[in-house]
Amino acid sequence: MKAEIIAVGTELLLGQILNTNAQYLSRELAAMGIDVYFQTVVGDNMGRLQHAIELASERADILLLTGGIGPTQDDLTKDALAAVLGRELHIDAAAMEQVEEFFVSRGRDMTENNRRQALVIEGCTPLPNETGLAVGVAIAQDGKFYIVLPGPPKEMKPMFDRQAKPWLQQHALTDEMPIYSRMLKFAGIGESLLEDKLLDLIQAQSDPTIAPYAKEGEVSVRLSTKAASEAEAEKKLEAMEAKIQERLPGHIYANTDMPIEQKIVEIMSERGLTLSAAESCTGGLLMESITAIPGSSAMFLGGFVCYSNEMKEKLLRVPRSLLEGEQAPGAVSREVAEALADQVRTITGSDFGLSVTGVAGPGDSEGKPAGLVYVGLAERGKDTEVFELRLGGNRESVRVRSVKTLLYRLWLRLISK
Amino acid sequence: MKAEIIAVGTELLLGQILNTNAQYLSRELAAMGIDVYFQTVVGDNMGRLQHAIELASERADILLLTGGIGPTQDDLTKDALAAVLGRELHIDAAAMEQVEEFFVSRGRDMTENNRRQALVIEGCTPLPNETGLAVGVAIAQDGKFYIVLPGPPKEMKPMFDRQAKPWLQQHALTDEMPIYSRMLKFAGIGESLLEDKLLDLIQAQSDPTIAPYAKEGEVSVRLSTKAASEAEAEKKLEAMEAKIQERLPGHIYANTDMPIEQKIVEIMSERGLTLSAAESCTGGLLMESITAIPGSSAMFLGGFVCYSNEMKEKLLRVPRSLLEGEQAPGAVSREVAEALADQVRTITGSDFGLSVTGVAGPGDSEGKPAGLVYVGLAERGKDTEVFELRLGGNRESVRVRSVKTLLYRLWLRLISK
Repeated sequence: MKAEIIAVGTELLLGQILNTNAQYLSRELAAMGIDVYFQTVVGDNMGRLQHAIELASERADILLLTGGIGPTQDDLTKDALAAVLGRELHIDAAAMEQVEEFFVSRGRDMTENNRRQALVIEGCTPLPNETGLAVGVAIAQDGKFYIVLPGPPKEMKPMFDRQAKPWLQQHALTDEMPIYSRMLKFAGIGESLLEDKLLDLIQAQSDPTIAPYAKEGEVSVRLSTKAASEAEAEKKLEAMEAKIQERLPGHIYANTDMPIEQKIVEIMSERGLTLSAAESCTGGLLMESITAIPGSSAMFLGGFVCYSNEMKEKLLRVPRSLLEGEQAPGAVSREVAEALADQVRTITGSDFGLSVTGVAGPGDSEGKPAGLVYVGLAERGKDTEVFELRLGGNRESVRVRSVKTLLYRLWLRLISK
Repeated sequence: MKAEIIAVGTELLLGQILNTNAQYLSRELAAMGIDVYFQTVVGDNMGRLQHAIELASERADILLLTGGIGPTQDDLTKDALAAVLGRELHIDAAAMEQVEEFFVSRGRDMTENNRRQALVIEGCTPLPNETGLAVGVAIAQDGKFYIVLPGPPKEMKPMFDRQAKPWLQQHALTDEMPIYSRMLKFAGIGESLLEDKLLDLIQAQSDPTIAPYAKEGEVSVRLSTKAASEAEAEKKLEAMEAKIQERLPGHIYANTDMPIEQKIVEIMSERGLTLSAAESCTGGLLMESITAIPGSSAMFLGGFVCYSNEMKEKLLRVPRSLLEGEQAPGAVSREVAEALADQVRTITGSDFGLSVTGVAGPGDSEGKPAGLVYVGLAERGKDTEVFELRLGGNRESVRVRSVKTLLYRLWLRLISK
């Protein structure tokens, strides 16, 4: 099965917004075993929109259209598809009720154009919108399958996941078994080393298939398999996860999609452990990552950003002899990272204390090269560990990777118990 | 003039990467007065790539291709374009020298496939790559204009800005005067109010044209004008900026593209002023934003993340009477925001002290609703100000907008001197 994604909206062609929908749907379709050969973006223009739909109907079996189903006269996606298919539009009663209720519940008058959000194509399966007002459309004609989804990602994603995906499984992929997948999340390993270790499995396109994804400081692997039942799929996914786990012990921190800081918040909250941090070159990024996780207040007490030497001394009682003078190791050193981690743990009274000190760049600092970073891990009743990192990349990259590396070390410590 | 952007790469169709290049080029082309009617994404496949180029040649005057010009056998963009144009490929001497030098300077052997990065189409203008190895291509044929750019944004952007854009001005837009633009950056105002205030100017498509852009907590307006000379353009841009400034006094913090924290770092560094911060619900995001700016170490001393009540008392000496007890205003209050700002300024000895305390959500906290946030601004020798914010949106949105609002207040204070 081949699919084409058509994103509709002049704001995309003006570059005012980024087409994240195409990426999301491409990943989902790949995991369902459906090939995407083209993605198209077209504006809110009836003629060009119909042209794009006709063209895609020639080159693909499944068409996914996103956007252009709101209340305004610019929103033409359903009109264009109906015209290409030679069908009429009508108001869907359930969707209309939802639109009306929305306005009643807010005590606002509904303007006439809002009725457009309840339009569907005759003979289609309406796709309810759980997080917005515009109803979606799924329809099959002449062996082709058409799906219309809203533009805003927070409406598009749930409608695809819960409405369109099962519809496609049932109507377009009838000859094929459903696909099940699992996301393995890795820490403390780069993309190239990971690929290297799994190369034979990736290239064999074995069952389950293995697809690695990388972004700054984070690597994930998606396992996908076709199976007659969920139980059968789980068995295959489990076995492959175990195989990968064996090759890369101590790197998989989760088998669902979440950042490592969320895993740490979960583990520490569960065990009633507390955390604090002292940051120099990362300037708050470490604490920000942790406190971005809902529920982190159960385990995160607080901490310091000690950007200047004076603050390291004043707020965290780092001895001046470590910071200044000819014999001093200086702010970017193993000794200072250790002192910061120890002190923040002691001052806050937390179970664990983290520290980062380094040169984020651009440029060297106090004779130390950009990318040289020391991260410290203190634990009540244990020796404090310090890790020296030599990172490439720009300021942002050095900061992100310092944080991810330190979180990895903390996670390793937590699971070693 | 109509343009089409073709992004080449199977990794885009698998959803492994996001097509940020299309957004960037669309914005740039819009500012040059060129309409983009379609964006297309196609994989690393010779047949489909040629089909996409032929199709775009029919519907547009200018084709921009990104990606698929690296060293591997998968990189087919130049081959496909050469085939469609009926031209040969040959090695560009200057580009080849650059590739060879790269390997010599790193003491590595150059593998044969790297020669592919120096390939150009006969009769083209080669576009030098200042930040990578693969050379770009600009060529005109039968009244159509073709540009080939690298896929990685850090190579694509400089090549477009410094090579492709002037080439297009010179070859494709000969009948038109060049376009000049200026980015106005706003703080303390939402997109809808801004549009409202400028609606007549936006709709009139006056000269200069006005295009607003919004992202979380930030609004920008791009002014563009065609002019025979830069001096003439500057005059028109200046006049329109003054007109907008008059309608929205105290909101334009810069007329080049930069975040407000950068403006603050610049002003404070220049005047030798120093800053510190105490964050509760934003958990480090404020300090992280400031320290993300290179050079911030000149003005930012440090600060605290005091997530728990205990830490507010222990680290920042907030009186317990404010935090706990029936009569206490509680951690999320005007009084605590004031105490935090005062204390962090006093403890660090900085000229200015910032504070944030609130409920980021999801869900209420201690009887206060999600989105209720107090931000404090202390200055040496001045009364401390506290602002109450009632923000909508999710946890991330509340955090970002709290930070942006506080930075806006600080900027206002700095420019009022």
